[in-house]
Amino acid sequence: MYIQSFSKKLLLAGLGAGLLSAPALAEVSAETAYILNSLLFLIGGFLVMWMAAGFAMLEAGLVRSKNVADICVKNVALYAIACIMWMLMGYNLMYQDVSGYFGTFFSLWSPDDSTALAEGGATYAAGSDFFFQMVFVATTASIVSGTVAERIKLFPFLIFTAILAGLIYPIQGSWEWGGGWLNSEGFVEAFGSEFADFAGSTLVHSTGGWAALVGAIILGPRLGRYSADGKVRPMPGSSLPLATLGTFILWFGWFGFNGASQLAMASAGDSIAISNIFVNTNMAAAGGAFAAAIVTKLVYKKVDLSMVLNGALAGLVSITAGPDTPLPLEATLIGAVGGALVVFAVPFFDKLKIDDVVGAISVHLVCGIWGTLAVAITNPDITFMAQLIGVLAIGAYVVVMSAVVWLALKYTIGIRLSDEEEELGSDLAELGLEAYPEFGRGSQKLSF
Amino acid sequence: MYIQSFSKKLLLAGLGAGLLSAPALAEVSAETAYILNSLLFLIGGFLVMWMAAGFAMLEAGLVRSKNVADICVKNVALYAIACIMWMLMGYNLMYQDVSGYFGTFFSLWSPDDSTALAEGGATYAAGSDFFFQMVFVATTASIVSGTVAERIKLFPFLIFTAILAGLIYPIQGSWEWGGGWLNSEGFVEAFGSEFADFAGSTLVHSTGGWAALVGAIILGPRLGRYSADGKVRPMPGSSLPLATLGTFILWFGWFGFNGASQLAMASAGDSIAISNIFVNTNMAAAGGAFAAAIVTKLVYKKVDLSMVLNGALAGLVSITAGPDTPLPLEATLIGAVGGALVVFAVPFFDKLKIDDVVGAISVHLVCGIWGTLAVAITNPDITFMAQLIGVLAIGAYVVVMSAVVWLALKYTIGIRLSDEEEELGSDLAELGLEAYPEFGRGSQKLSF
Amino acid sequence: MYIQSFSKKLLLAGLGAGLLSAPALAEVSAETAYILNSLLFLIGGFLVMWMAAGFAMLEAGLVRSKNVADICVKNVALYAIACIMWMLMGYNLMYQDVSGYFGTFFSLWSPDDSTALAEGGATYAAGSDFFFQMVFVATTASIVSGTVAERIKLFPFLIFTAILAGLIYPIQGSWEWGGGWLNSEGFVEAFGSEFADFAGSTLVHSTGGWAALVGAIILGPRLGRYSADGKVRPMPGSSLPLATLGTFILWFGWFGFNGASQLAMASAGDSIAISNIFVNTNMAAAGGAFAAAIVTKLVYKKVDLSMVLNGALAGLVSITAGPDTPLPLEATLIGAVGGALVVFAVPFFDKLKIDDVVGAISVHLVCGIWGTLAVAITNPDITFMAQLIGVLAIGAYVVVMSAVVWLALKYTIGIRLSDEEEELGSDLAELGLEAYPEFGRGSQKLSF
Repeated sequence: MYIQSFSKKLLLAGLGAGLLSAPALAEVSAETAYILNSLLFLIGGFLVMWMAAGFAMLEAGLVRSKNVADICVKNVALYAIACIMWMLMGYNLMYQDVSGYFGTFFSLWSPDDSTALAEGGATYAAGSDFFFQMVFVATTASIVSGTVAERIKLFPFLIFTAILAGLIYPIQGSWEWGGGWLNSEGFVEAFGSEFADFAGSTLVHSTGGWAALVGAIILGPRLGRYSADGKVRPMPGSSLPLATLGTFILWFGWFGFNGASQLAMASAGDSIAISNIFVNTNMAAAGGAFAAAIVTKLVYKKVDLSMVLNGALAGLVSITAGPDTPLPLEATLIGAVGGALVVFAVPFFDKLKIDDVVGAISVHLVCGIWGTLAVAITNPDITFMAQLIGVLAIGAYVVVMSAVVWLALKYTIGIRLSDEEEELGSDLAELGLEAYPEFGRGSQKLSF
Repeated sequence: MYIQSFSKKLLLAGLGAGLLSAPALAEVSAETAYILNSLLFLIGGFLVMWMAAGFAMLEAGLVRSKNVADICVKNVALYAIACIMWMLMGYNLMYQDVSGYFGTFFSLWSPDDSTALAEGGATYAAGSDFFFQMVFVATTASIVSGTVAERIKLFPFLIFTAILAGLIYPIQGSWEWGGGWLNSEGFVEAFGSEFADFAGSTLVHSTGGWAALVGAIILGPRLGRYSADGKVRPMPGSSLPLATLGTFILWFGWFGFNGASQLAMASAGDSIAISNIFVNTNMAAAGGAFAAAIVTKLVYKKVDLSMVLNGALAGLVSITAGPDTPLPLEATLIGAVGGALVVFAVPFFDKLKIDDVVGAISVHLVCGIWGTLAVAITNPDITFMAQLIGVLAIGAYVVVMSAVVWLALKYTIGIRLSDEEEELGSDLAELGLEAYPEFGRGSQKLSF
Repeated sequence: MYIQSFSKKLLLAGLGAGLLSAPALAEVSAETAYILNSLLFLIGGFLVMWMAAGFAMLEAGLVRSKNVADICVKNVALYAIACIMWMLMGYNLMYQDVSGYFGTFFSLWSPDDSTALAEGGATYAAGSDFFFQMVFVATTASIVSGTVAERIKLFPFLIFTAILAGLIYPIQGSWEWGGGWLNSEGFVEAFGSEFADFAGSTLVHSTGGWAALVGAIILGPRLGRYSADGKVRPMPGSSLPLATLGTFILWFGWFGFNGASQLAMASAGDSIAISNIFVNTNMAAAGGAFAAAIVTKLVYKKVDLSMVLNGALAGLVSITAGPDTPLPLEATLIGAVGGALVVFAVPFFDKLKIDDVVGAISVHLVCGIWGTLAVAITNPDITFMAQLIGVLAIGAYVVVMSAVVWLALKYTIGIRLSDEEEELGSDLAELGLEAYPEFGRGSQKLSF
């Protein structure tokens, strides 16, 4: 698809489709192409892996200090578990032998490059692709932890993560990136184009967002968060510089997330596409942060740091469905709309008494939807209807699946800390330790 | 220029200029070269983008806790604004149609690779270069925020940033990197060589430093910083580990800053140059940190962590004007001189009652000048006079321009917090929140 | 050696050794190969350099707040000193003119690519290799600082670091990576195979671990750590999110550590190998973190965050000796064993009253040995005996050398803070400042 949109752009620019055979540029050799494409996956992969640290710092900064160590455990463990589940079943479920609506393989992945190489058709190392896809599923899982923080029990959360990464995510992923029905001829005939989600505004971000939303509803809000008269009690995060760091990490990692989703680097056309994706990714984040700063200043009279941070992330989520086609100014505006949306979405969910500790639903779900629909604005090949159907289908699927799993956990082992444990904090309740034993409350207990 | 100095080195080494046509190495194809050069810009670009997080953490660690959230907002917002201004006018102002002393275009940038590709002369994707240059201007803007922290108002600061990124920086940048008068034949005739500033000791670092210096003078010192009898009241930073993290981030990102300023990777000669730049960048930082540790121990009897951190940064700034020509030992010594300079520069500015919260003037301006002049020591093609003229011209220009903007802001909307707001802290005054609500002062107010 | 094991794998897979001459993949040109191999070293190098920040944050998070600034100084200074010593003598000692059991050169390194290029045999830039090797020696030095934290004096520690980096590390390194006796024909004849340590479970991690162990024994435990009746007094770290951040940084950097140890990227075979190394490195870390979480839950009823973090690192150390041969599931299990080992090793060393502040001996020494021995399980070319001899030889050598240096320091300038200084904290004692002047103890003293 990206090759098509690139060619289209060149056609519009008057060059024609003959670029790669243009005499001016001697071609890339097949082995060099193999190496470069694999390298793209590896660089993209380590950048996206690093986003796990970004979520951890963002969430550690936005929860209260009594829950910081617990959220750190969750972020490390969910990343580990998502990777293991991906190896055990997720990857093959998503990409292997897709017949009908979802894959039929539940099988362990291991690398096998020999056949493809012998047949001459290989364009990248199998392991490089596996690695890149693995860190994406970890991102999806990371989105959930922030929303349900401060009151969920550790092990039920990790079980949900395992099912999300091993089953829920790869099945919907197979519909689009696995070559399933959202990309089928029937779909194009019915809705005017295929469903377009370049790097996962819907497949990754809104999937995580829907799972978080359902979790937040089933789990209920934190104790004392909403008073009977409809007031929202602020529960400010313990360390805003850590939240800022987390946001910068995510911004940084997003270049891998969007850039390497081009899936190939070994042509001038791919290089151009990746470069424009980098620019657009950056501009959307800048637009989101800027818009959130201005809107909070106008609406609340004060600039709110956590809104600015969420604004930057909102811009990133918003551009992720289509970072390849907009002009930089368009990308800035798409991100800015996302940044503004977040400023209104956060109090909206509070009004519904859906308690989202870090604002992840507003960022990843609301802007994931916005970004997916926005593709139809800048990409003339894509219809609004196709985007809407994709958003709704994946949303309905993830909501149902998540609800089943959350409810099953709730009515078996339970998902929520007791009131006493929540009051005490999940660090002491679940881990028996404190994140900052010498500061704040901790400093009153320990003597050195 | 880098090609010349590389050839010169090889000539000195007895190989002659025939390297790239040597039969032993089959040539890189044109399309492969295009990809590799673009990749260099993208890798360099994401590393330099990450330096924005480094400045944020360095500054968040070195301000007092009551100003931490505000400095985080500033760092995120200034990065966003610098990028937007760069797209709206900065890039084209710096690089497009340079006639006479500065560019004549004030125009929106958008990528256009088709013409260059059709003509066969393209060696990298336009977007990759734009991205790389964009993160440089953000670095320049980041330098200012630390110096003027703790007493400047948020929006005037951001307006200054926008003008710095959109107007002040690109005009002086066009003089050198845009192919302007500092690289002209007339300049070479007058001063014996062109002005050499490989990755921006002057164009980026001293530009930021001059803007910070002028800002600090016009803004005045923090309340109570200097007593009437000439004493300096210490105002220690709130989190030295965050400052350490910021320094490591900057060190890490600097490999992209200097390495990708080679501007091409697609030849053995470029690979050698980039590799030596990596080594020299690292050695200069090591030399700077080591020298600062030793000098503070000798002068003050104690090793000062913030001086060691600034020493590492000083080494990095010092090598930035010419990381390609020195031997590793020379790079270490250039960095060490920078590290030692900072130890004396910081109290020097305090003596002048110029209040620089994080020491950015000492690091970026003093060592930016030193590093630029030091090029003449290790690069025989470059004259001391050419370097001095470049430093003075850009210095004078930035001082005048910055002063005009700072003064205009001061006498219109005002640039300084009221005494009460400064006492209260910029977090509560400007944002209405605290960075660490549960620690220190915060913990006395909130109950959980 | 990696080429051999790769061919072997392909043979097993039924393809035969003809891969690189397969007609389907047009070859990489020699100059492109030169560029790509250099690029691998540079990317790997900056990722490993970044691990210095990981150690700094891990250790800053795991020491008490009164020792945080001091551990930050140590981490910055040790990195700087290790790099300087490596340039002054380490690199040439390890790689140059190895005759007999160790190198004979004590000489300054500087880049020289001209001869190799003229002869046509160069496959990478000399500086790129030097840079990559330099950051490895810094890693070795970083391992020691955590173990001996909170009671060692700054300058004796830095002198030990200089000797470790300049002398102890490169001599043992020359035995294996410098082409010395652990790779000689005589060794293969005697023990059935060469000694295999792909990226340094033994050469880097257990070397650092042995040096730390000897240091901890000679230095003695922290005051009050072990009571007369055998109880261990907990001394919890000051900031678990910083420790979490450090772990994520190390995990991220390890892709460079293991991946670029393939030492070449410019063939399909190398790309496949690097990709599989990335996958295995990630899976081993995931296995280690997961195993540590489960084991601590089973043994102690609570999940311990610092154990989970050390579990991830244990998995990484465990796979480092052989990340190229295992299947992903095998890598997960190798890492999981490492993660479980750490949970038992930490209290074991406490039982011996060997006080290791951050658990580095358990992670880097115990799992370094485990990982090195485990190569014999997944790599049929390698014998257990060869691995054991390598582990023991290097262990004995490092123990003796470290003991000599630590004891010499102890009986000359002294290595330990006075009891009063230790009680006060190394920050105030050595640096005259506090890491967090406004929180915890600091907040009682300062008024703002």
